[in-house]
Amino acid sequence: MIRLGIVGMGNLGRGVQRAIAQNPDTELVAIFSRRAQPEQASATPPTLSLAHMERYKGQIDVMLLCGGSATDLPEQSPAVAELFNTVDSFDTHARIPEHFARVDNAARQHGHLCLISAGWDPGLFSLMRLLGQSTLPQGADYTFWGRGVSQGHSDAIRRISGVADAKQYTIPIDEALAQVRSGAQPTLSTAQKHTRECYVVPEPGADLSRIEQEIKQMPNYFADYHTTVHFVSAEELQAHHSGMPHGGMVLRTGTTSPGTKQRMEFGLQLDSNPEFTASVLVAYARAVARMAQEGQTGARTVFDIAPSLLAPLSAQELRQHLL
Amino acid sequence: MIRLGIVGMGNLGRGVQRAIAQNPDTELVAIFSRRAQPEQASATPPTLSLAHMERYKGQIDVMLLCGGSATDLPEQSPAVAELFNTVDSFDTHARIPEHFARVDNAARQHGHLCLISAGWDPGLFSLMRLLGQSTLPQGADYTFWGRGVSQGHSDAIRRISGVADAKQYTIPIDEALAQVRSGAQPTLSTAQKHTRECYVVPEPGADLSRIEQEIKQMPNYFADYHTTVHFVSAEELQAHHSGMPHGGMVLRTGTTSPGTKQRMEFGLQLDSNPEFTASVLVAYARAVARMAQEGQTGARTVFDIAPSLLAPLSAQELRQHLL
Repeated sequence: MIRLGIVGMGNLGRGVQRAIAQNPDTELVAIFSRRAQPEQASATPPTLSLAHMERYKGQIDVMLLCGGSATDLPEQSPAVAELFNTVDSFDTHARIPEHFARVDNAARQHGHLCLISAGWDPGLFSLMRLLGQSTLPQGADYTFWGRGVSQGHSDAIRRISGVADAKQYTIPIDEALAQVRSGAQPTLSTAQKHTRECYVVPEPGADLSRIEQEIKQMPNYFADYHTTVHFVSAEELQAHHSGMPHGGMVLRTGTTSPGTKQRMEFGLQLDSNPEFTASVLVAYARAVARMAQEGQTGARTVFDIAPSLLAPLSAQELRQHLL
Repeated sequence: MIRLGIVGMGNLGRGVQRAIAQNPDTELVAIFSRRAQPEQASATPPTLSLAHMERYKGQIDVMLLCGGSATDLPEQSPAVAELFNTVDSFDTHARIPEHFARVDNAARQHGHLCLISAGWDPGLFSLMRLLGQSTLPQGADYTFWGRGVSQGHSDAIRRISGVADAKQYTIPIDEALAQVRSGAQPTLSTAQKHTRECYVVPEPGADLSRIEQEIKQMPNYFADYHTTVHFVSAEELQAHHSGMPHGGMVLRTGTTSPGTKQRMEFGLQLDSNPEFTASVLVAYARAVARMAQEGQTGARTVFDIAPSLLAPLSAQELRQHLL
């Protein structure tokens, strides 16, 4: 039985709790949350404040860090790496080398094994980019995201004055996808691959055309994209846009000899982004528990994990049933 | 530089030669073939008879075994494992455990590292089945093959009396694929997922309706399938059906909580099945060379290979550019 703990009880943390329930070889020992209430300490599993983590040393094989990449994980991942083996889903691509170095340092000094940036992107999509480049060295790869809710873009809209609430969908452009699939290897910016669709609940009396302009002109987030803005009521947002669907595709097209085209395609279509991410984290926690038991320490990424370690089956069963 | 050798110079072996040329960190040292001609021994690279293999001990890091699974590999893989690290593409699913055991035994006794059953199915498709089951434990997975040429089925038609030549395409059934994508988790036999399309060149004066009946009634190969038979001239077969396209899809659908559907999909569309398989073998040969250098011995499958070992980039480059 692999004994797991959860740090952070937002959407991802709740997803991890569900994923653990789906994996009979794992059990949830304790949850750690900034918002832990005293009466939750005696529940099964208990929810405790972060300060009580240390008391669980030796009772939790892997701690799943479910905080956000902006402020939580840069602090939590190296700190918890001093006490436990960990898995996080750090997804600020540009800061991964720095995050890796800090977690690696803490993990090595304290004899733990810590996997960073698990999930689907980074995570499974990263694996697909690697498989594509390694098996089709003469080619190009493309990542499309969506149709799905971008938390960062939704938040950016909510910060505009006069906006009560908002959801933003990132949507792949069919023509761009078709061009990629043809093997033409076009050069495409993120804006040439995606449109952005915004559902905005305005505050009473707000100037809608000013809000629309502010969204469409927002640098980095929207200015380069074909963006549509729909104003809706709070009820409509709740009824039709409260889910967290997401997904996307990684494609690699290449040639193995002149004119011989080969294409690899990986796609996810997810009703719940946090629940699927959580499911991936639990599979990687299984691998971390096994590798840590072998005495491995330091930081790792999905690139370092032999696939067999993710599955509950034995090597022999895998060869017999899945190979 | 990773020094490679090829055993067997059919379509797959020629594909490996092309793949090595696309990977600047690999070089082809020698080719071994039953049909080696004396004058080829002085070419660069030399083509030599199988009996000369032993002389290359210490000069080849990994030998790529490109024979067939029916008769070549069951003999060659354990035999060559006594002399070299190897990669093969053994694809008789039912006999994999036995093949693994024989190769493992030879490899351990002689201190070599040998990967069996690399390619795309078994190979990348196996990896996808494992990723799907590990990240969506409550779900079902499906493998579709095609549209592509099945060598085994083409050969079966050619053995019918009155048939001069033939090509058989395996074709996924769109309705079955749509049903799987819906998340309904249907139970589908291989015949419920695929149709079979046959292009047959008859011998002069042959009884076409007898040939068609013999094909359609052939047990295991065609009897359970919706099969169509087209009679064509040798010229037409050559002009339109001489390629070796293939591909397929692995899908996993599951739920992470009641009613929350998640879907993973991996697809290949290949102009040349042997060239892509060869490309995969060379990427795995890179991994085998690195693991052997660490002193690992015995048999392995794609499940045992950490993805980072497949890529020519360093771990740091991978984290920076692909994660």
